[in-house]
Amino acid sequence: MPPLVPAATLSEDYLRTRRFTLELCEPLAAEDYVVQAMPDCSPAKWHLAHTTWFFETFVLRQRTGYRPFDATGAYEYLFNSYYNQVGPQFRRPDRGLLARPTVAEVYGYREYIDERLLRLLEEEEVPGGMAGVITLGIHHEQQHQELLLTDLKYAWSLIPSRLRPAYRERREAPGPEPDGMGWIEYPEGVRCVGHGGTDFAFDNERPRHRVLAGPFRLADRPVTNGEYLAFLEDGGYQRPELWLSDGWISVQQHGWRAPLYWEPGEGGWWLLTLCGARPLEPGEPVCHVSFFEADAYARWAGARLPTEAEWEIAAGQVPIRGNFVEDGYFHPIALGEDSPAKMFGDVWEWTSSPYVAYPGYRPPAGALGEYNAKFMNGQYVLRGGSCFTPRPHIRAAYRNFFPPDKRWQCTGIRLAQ
Amino acid sequence: MPPLVPAATLSEDYLRTRRFTLELCEPLAAEDYVVQAMPDCSPAKWHLAHTTWFFETFVLRQRTGYRPFDATGAYEYLFNSYYNQVGPQFRRPDRGLLARPTVAEVYGYREYIDERLLRLLEEEEVPGGMAGVITLGIHHEQQHQELLLTDLKYAWSLIPSRLRPAYRERREAPGPEPDGMGWIEYPEGVRCVGHGGTDFAFDNERPRHRVLAGPFRLADRPVTNGEYLAFLEDGGYQRPELWLSDGWISVQQHGWRAPLYWEPGEGGWWLLTLCGARPLEPGEPVCHVSFFEADAYARWAGARLPTEAEWEIAAGQVPIRGNFVEDGYFHPIALGEDSPAKMFGDVWEWTSSPYVAYPGYRPPAGALGEYNAKFMNGQYVLRGGSCFTPRPHIRAAYRNFFPPDKRWQCTGIRLAQ
Amino acid sequence: MPPLVPAATLSEDYLRTRRFTLELCEPLAAEDYVVQAMPDCSPAKWHLAHTTWFFETFVLRQRTGYRPFDATGAYEYLFNSYYNQVGPQFRRPDRGLLARPTVAEVYGYREYIDERLLRLLEEEEVPGGMAGVITLGIHHEQQHQELLLTDLKYAWSLIPSRLRPAYRERREAPGPEPDGMGWIEYPEGVRCVGHGGTDFAFDNERPRHRVLAGPFRLADRPVTNGEYLAFLEDGGYQRPELWLSDGWISVQQHGWRAPLYWEPGEGGWWLLTLCGARPLEPGEPVCHVSFFEADAYARWAGARLPTEAEWEIAAGQVPIRGNFVEDGYFHPIALGEDSPAKMFGDVWEWTSSPYVAYPGYRPPAGALGEYNAKFMNGQYVLRGGSCFTPRPHIRAAYRNFFPPDKRWQCTGIRLAQ
Amino acid sequence: MPPLVPAATLSEDYLRTRRFTLELCEPLAAEDYVVQAMPDCSPAKWHLAHTTWFFETFVLRQRTGYRPFDATGAYEYLFNSYYNQVGPQFRRPDRGLLARPTVAEVYGYREYIDERLLRLLEEEEVPGGMAGVITLGIHHEQQHQELLLTDLKYAWSLIPSRLRPAYRERREAPGPEPDGMGWIEYPEGVRCVGHGGTDFAFDNERPRHRVLAGPFRLADRPVTNGEYLAFLEDGGYQRPELWLSDGWISVQQHGWRAPLYWEPGEGGWWLLTLCGARPLEPGEPVCHVSFFEADAYARWAGARLPTEAEWEIAAGQVPIRGNFVEDGYFHPIALGEDSPAKMFGDVWEWTSSPYVAYPGYRPPAGALGEYNAKFMNGQYVLRGGSCFTPRPHIRAAYRNFFPPDKRWQCTGIRLAQ
Repeated sequence: MPPLVPAATLSEDYLRTRRFTLELCEPLAAEDYVVQAMPDCSPAKWHLAHTTWFFETFVLRQRTGYRPFDATGAYEYLFNSYYNQVGPQFRRPDRGLLARPTVAEVYGYREYIDERLLRLLEEEEVPGGMAGVITLGIHHEQQHQELLLTDLKYAWSLIPSRLRPAYRERREAPGPEPDGMGWIEYPEGVRCVGHGGTDFAFDNERPRHRVLAGPFRLADRPVTNGEYLAFLEDGGYQRPELWLSDGWISVQQHGWRAPLYWEPGEGGWWLLTLCGARPLEPGEPVCHVSFFEADAYARWAGARLPTEAEWEIAAGQVPIRGNFVEDGYFHPIALGEDSPAKMFGDVWEWTSSPYVAYPGYRPPAGALGEYNAKFMNGQYVLRGGSCFTPRPHIRAAYRNFFPPDKRWQCTGIRLAQ
Repeated sequence: MPPLVPAATLSEDYLRTRRFTLELCEPLAAEDYVVQAMPDCSPAKWHLAHTTWFFETFVLRQRTGYRPFDATGAYEYLFNSYYNQVGPQFRRPDRGLLARPTVAEVYGYREYIDERLLRLLEEEEVPGGMAGVITLGIHHEQQHQELLLTDLKYAWSLIPSRLRPAYRERREAPGPEPDGMGWIEYPEGVRCVGHGGTDFAFDNERPRHRVLAGPFRLADRPVTNGEYLAFLEDGGYQRPELWLSDGWISVQQHGWRAPLYWEPGEGGWWLLTLCGARPLEPGEPVCHVSFFEADAYARWAGARLPTEAEWEIAAGQVPIRGNFVEDGYFHPIALGEDSPAKMFGDVWEWTSSPYVAYPGYRPPAGALGEYNAKFMNGQYVLRGGSCFTPRPHIRAAYRNFFPPDKRWQCTGIRLAQ
Repeated sequence: MPPLVPAATLSEDYLRTRRFTLELCEPLAAEDYVVQAMPDCSPAKWHLAHTTWFFETFVLRQRTGYRPFDATGAYEYLFNSYYNQVGPQFRRPDRGLLARPTVAEVYGYREYIDERLLRLLEEEEVPGGMAGVITLGIHHEQQHQELLLTDLKYAWSLIPSRLRPAYRERREAPGPEPDGMGWIEYPEGVRCVGHGGTDFAFDNERPRHRVLAGPFRLADRPVTNGEYLAFLEDGGYQRPELWLSDGWISVQQHGWRAPLYWEPGEGGWWLLTLCGARPLEPGEPVCHVSFFEADAYARWAGARLPTEAEWEIAAGQVPIRGNFVEDGYFHPIALGEDSPAKMFGDVWEWTSSPYVAYPGYRPPAGALGEYNAKFMNGQYVLRGGSCFTPRPHIRAAYRNFFPPDKRWQCTGIRLAQ
Repeated sequence: MPPLVPAATLSEDYLRTRRFTLELCEPLAAEDYVVQAMPDCSPAKWHLAHTTWFFETFVLRQRTGYRPFDATGAYEYLFNSYYNQVGPQFRRPDRGLLARPTVAEVYGYREYIDERLLRLLEEEEVPGGMAGVITLGIHHEQQHQELLLTDLKYAWSLIPSRLRPAYRERREAPGPEPDGMGWIEYPEGVRCVGHGGTDFAFDNERPRHRVLAGPFRLADRPVTNGEYLAFLEDGGYQRPELWLSDGWISVQQHGWRAPLYWEPGEGGWWLLTLCGARPLEPGEPVCHVSFFEADAYARWAGARLPTEAEWEIAAGQVPIRGNFVEDGYFHPIALGEDSPAKMFGDVWEWTSSPYVAYPGYRPPAGALGEYNAKFMNGQYVLRGGSCFTPRPHIRAAYRNFFPPDKRWQCTGIRLAQ
């Protein structure tokens, strides 16, 4: 846990983050809060309640005299995502079956907790442990801000197109298709990766440690829609030799023929964005591809995906700039020329690294140890943040992770050699 | 199709039925309209839209010059339940995944259709065929009034008990446990069953035809909670010899230990009603049992279920009186003494008759032929209506039908010998 | 149970039946005894053992001093099909996972039981009850003779065609396609159906009882391949309006495009028979159709399936003649002119009657009550026997039954009006 | 591909390996060759045919003039495991549904191929490429020798215990429970791992490359049954905090309460071995645990699993000695004192390393590139070989791999820190 921080800063961070969540919900109708479009998703009202539950459970309930918002114990059960050490949980795939609590009740819950948490931050010196947990809760809420939008996008994709709402008016950033991919060379060497500072990072980013890497080359930008389309048109989805065995099974089972949200339309492919459908823009980074698709594309392109260490070594040398959720695009934008290696924002980049513990990793004690550690199986690391990620949330050492067949996050491809 | 009827009567029936649907929705929060608690259920907003779609599709769209409410064609697809001859349908189990149209839009849809349908009824002489279809649509809406409530009851049953809303304040009708079951004798003979008049009946109730029945005896009332409890306590759910093979499989698969909505509570069993949980009332008819449970109970009791012909012969001799949805109990009430054979209301009564066509049955031509005929497989006939059934909906010849393992309808047991 | 019968007759029947089972197995290789090609089927060695277990369990074990063949109790468990009152059973779909007992051991089991059962029949006067159970066991074994062949046919159908064995050399009986279907009229009346005599019949054929039937017309022969082909070519499998709802679901789920064992081949459709594949013979009765297909065909043909009462009324008036297993065709043969109403042999004929108890039916006491009664749900009655049925097994009152989506039995269609 | 080798040596290796397969089959009855006890397993006759198909497809068919054993093309389809570039494959989970080819036919297939392959090796100078593929085929067959036994063990485990055969008479090697676990220290450093020589190794073991490892400590022997029992008795299978999330799901789904083949018996736990059941021997290495169990055990023990690099660094320093299939135990034996770090034989040791490509890895061109590369997802690396592994098959760089929930291989645990 990070050391003692000024309560005022924390208070401000807390408030800004909590408010931003509500701001993101402004375009939602009551119905949008309720549906769970697939088991991987959660209803928006669940996101609102769960992030609140997090502060209640790990901060407020730790203090004597706290009177919970819901005296019945039902919220404790409903909004516990997966913390076995806190208690049993409502079945995850059934979150969309619950008509109650209502959206209004969930907003009431948020207010109740905010009031008490802010009071706590005002009145006393916050011990380092508690400040650390509040900071964790803020970053946790940022994660759910992204999920709230990606889940909403998925839910809306199931609505017949002509009834489908748009989240906000589209902010356009068209650009020319970028030039051919450039490669940046990195010499061999023993490097340090992982988060080492005292500022906030998730436990899974630590400890900072040395790795032997390289020499390697990394593409100077993500793969574009235009490039990916060439793979498609070269029969990429019909050629088993390009795919991992499990990837090929996924292609068959799900009937994949293109990235998620690509739909045949007038004049070719259209992409469904959170702000409506529009023709495929060749210069944008391709997104909503699974690890399996990223891997097959790389094989087809005569390249490979980077390891997470390679990615981090490269990212450590560039500033954190890019298209994040605050920019209001809610979609990747065409690749410009501003950066020698556009590493951040737009799309999460699949790495070839299975998500495992760093050498010497130890999860925190207690229930918060379940936050990351127990998911270190069957997933791959993604890096860099996306157009749905809050800007303060990201850093070079940040490790996101998803199973290799998931596509509803804004996930793209960077090549390595 | 029934012959030409006075448009004024039809108009009044239409209006009363449509308004009653909305009245039944008054206690619902926005969230309650959206969820689909299991594939057999539909969201309340879907019921509201589908019944409207029925009038639009089979009446308004048949007339030249009609401009549909939803010009995109999406409603036509979303709210078509199962009419292949009308067109393809949205996947039934996924009705709860749709955030749109919103509840407000569905209410707008209803108003739009109501206005046009009433205008149609005002302005001109309604041809018999169209009047017949409108009458069918009214009875169709009554069926969905019942489903709307039973689906809501199921949806609310998934909410943790302490957050669970009550539909209305409970109207109490406690009564003493009735005396032992009496038996009414019916002599052997060739009888007529099925609907024969010119007034409205569903196609599956026709033609009226002769059957050889009896002699048989029918219980003078449904089985009570108290009687069913004795079956339970005698190990009814643990003894395979009491069950049909598929019934025993259902017991194992679903872990049945009691009727649906029975829950262990303080002082014994509690029953979850639409208006809250309360201790089991021994004198009430048992409800929410599957055909398999009804059949096993009858075997245990040394009796059997009646055939639908037997039931109808008996019911034809008593007035249609009982506890219906308009009575506002939303639950069976303790059995009193007012009728020698309480045949109507309270609970649908499982018969031993698989749901098949009557001799000489012919489904209507066109898409409306799909209303009933294609479901004549794998279901059993139920008779008599329940506390969720609108009173004008029921008659002695009425044939309801459900698969033998379903329990979310208000279904009970009458014994025969 | 039938009354006391001469032990010598019983002994002869027993021996003939048991030997015939082995005769039917002669063409099998060791491997053919082991596989279970789908959950509905059983391995041949299981059939051999289970029929033996039947005599051991219900006859020999009822006598004091019997020493079971398998002292470990494993056979009791493995070869109990579904008698809960005897004890638990090995999982039915996993019968093909068992390498032991070996085929040789199962043959040893048969010899052991045969020796003891025949000794029992020689040495003493057999009480009526026991004789009745032995008779039941003989008819039970005849049922499994049919299943053994139909299961074998299904198992062999999974083998790539060019490795597929032939059961016996084909006995050919080609014939001209029969003339158009004739119709036989039956007047209305109260008739008796069900088995009434003292000779053997299964419990489900009793009691004989009166029904009101007719007037009706029955086709004078089953539907032919040629006639069914016309249905196919008229888009029968693509038109939902011809199908029951569950039938249409089956068409989609299983990808049905023709009866089971029809395969596109040189010059049109080929049929896979137990004795090899050959071009479709238009004059043969169509076989291996489900109830759903039979029902859809009848609807397409402007007719319907007969009720089981209608079928029995008609069959009671003709002699039991036809193509049975002893004739050695192992396939339906082209329809000749020898009978005004070819009711028996060739193909089991689907009726429109769900399989339910006759009025007044009571299953036998004890475990043998599980033989038929508990399956009275979700199945349809078939009549008349097939080319795989042993001739002594069939009679006019005989009720076979299968679920409506099953096709691996030799099942065909007769029309009614 | 390894370079040109003396044909005589190759011929001898080929013959020895092929004969050893048959020797391993000697205890099998015909029925044992046919069953497929679960989708992960294959019937013994399939193993015999597939290994033969490998030589036929990748060696004999590459030469002009070869006349295949099965001219119909069915073998090509049936015995192709997963090589999409060779052609389509029969459904893997259905291998046990095939009664043909018979065991005798498969033996005939083997003889036919052996004769031609040996003739090829006699008559001419074998080009390096072909010699390399034959060598690969020999090692491939060794892999299937192990699978044949582990699949047989699993198949026999489904047979009721009292009918279960024993593979061979048990060769006993009881020993005292070893002393407490010792730890061997390895200093930090850049080391080389992977196979570097010119002798045979699978493609996935190459290229040899440098890694930065350590410092670390490795246990000097695998975990014993006695030690694992302590985990069990400490509630290991009831405490979610000890498990990865997917591991805990596996525990629940499969109802795991102990390693595979542990059964409660007289006096405590019994272990089912290939040569019969016997009481748990505390001094033997625990086996038939999944990765999830190995991982949970390590967490409980305050340790972790080694990475594959750590394991290989340690193994490179000790001779390849241990209990292999040729020793005839067919089960791990009690841990003695002969080696400072018993790394080989007895049990495959789970590492914490997901199975991914080594840096610079390139799969072979063509269909043989599918041998290993496409499975580099969702599996973990195991090291060291087991009591079912042929001794010539193993080396320090050898990478075995299985999904984390599989237990039917002889898999155990070594701790690291």
